[in-house]
Amino acid sequence: MSDEQRFLVNALELAYANVENNGRPFGAVVVKDREVLATGVNEILRTNDPTSHAELNAIRAASQKLHSANLAGCTVYASGQPCPMCMAAMRLAGISEVVYAYSNDDGTPFGLSTAKIYEEMAKPFSEQSMKINHVPVRLSSRIGLYEKWQRKQTPNV
Amino acid sequence: MSDEQRFLVNALELAYANVENNGRPFGAVVVKDREVLATGVNEILRTNDPTSHAELNAIRAASQKLHSANLAGCTVYASGQPCPMCMAAMRLAGISEVVYAYSNDDGTPFGLSTAKIYEEMAKPFSEQSMKINHVPVRLSSRIGLYEKWQRKQTPNV
Repeated sequence: MSDEQRFLVNALELAYANVENNGRPFGAVVVKDREVLATGVNEILRTNDPTSHAELNAIRAASQKLHSANLAGCTVYASGQPCPMCMAAMRLAGISEVVYAYSNDDGTPFGLSTAKIYEEMAKPFSEQSMKINHVPVRLSSRIGLYEKWQRKQTPNV
Repeated sequence: MSDEQRFLVNALELAYANVENNGRPFGAVVVKDREVLATGVNEILRTNDPTSHAELNAIRAASQKLHSANLAGCTVYASGQPCPMCMAAMRLAGISEVVYAYSNDDGTPFGLSTAKIYEEMAKPFSEQSMKINHVPVRLSSRIGLYEKWQRKQTPNV
């Protein structure tokens, strides 16, 4: 069995176990240097946290293990095709590769596809079903928010 | 001052305070029935958690307050344009509307834009810089993962 298959089997076994524990059928592992660094399962039903996806939880656990928000060089193995939230989280963390076993097409008959969220998010903001508004309010009595942050980064300049 | 302006000012004040506390310049509030239900700030630098964005933290806090992963009827007010992770999280939570004050264009000169992540994610999987692979591994000795989950949902059928 290749490393890739082994890590996917690990993610799948986590997903099966999560179903046994009354959770949703998703598991993920974060791998670095051919070793499992951290794992996660979908915990939405247990925690009521809508962001508690397997991949997000695995990324969060990996960051705590490395004491770093930068997961460059890590690969995510997921039982199912990651949703856009988890895909973006991987990018924010510097993940270089993701591999998944069950596709959105596999999930569709079971209501377990996030294809519609992908489709929605591919549209211009003005055409999406969620209203997205840019209202350029500023706190006029203060220095610009981002200028303030920039100055804090370089206090001696 | 309109409700919309008031909630954006609230999000901005959270962002300013977060900079004072050595955090990144982002704050968000979740509003339901014209009241602030929960707030969040960017805590990446404090926690090393790459998913610790203001909007995501506000959504998580709101879900805990409502004891529900379903935030239908809630609006998110964010100091800055939400990244794709947070946008997708809002959709997963059933958020109906998001309003933001600082745009990605405003953030670009400060390195605070997520426009490149949006651009990347708009491409087909095969053309993105992060490698995305579908490898349909299955645990052949077991019932299908999604079938197993489905049976668990309807134990008496």
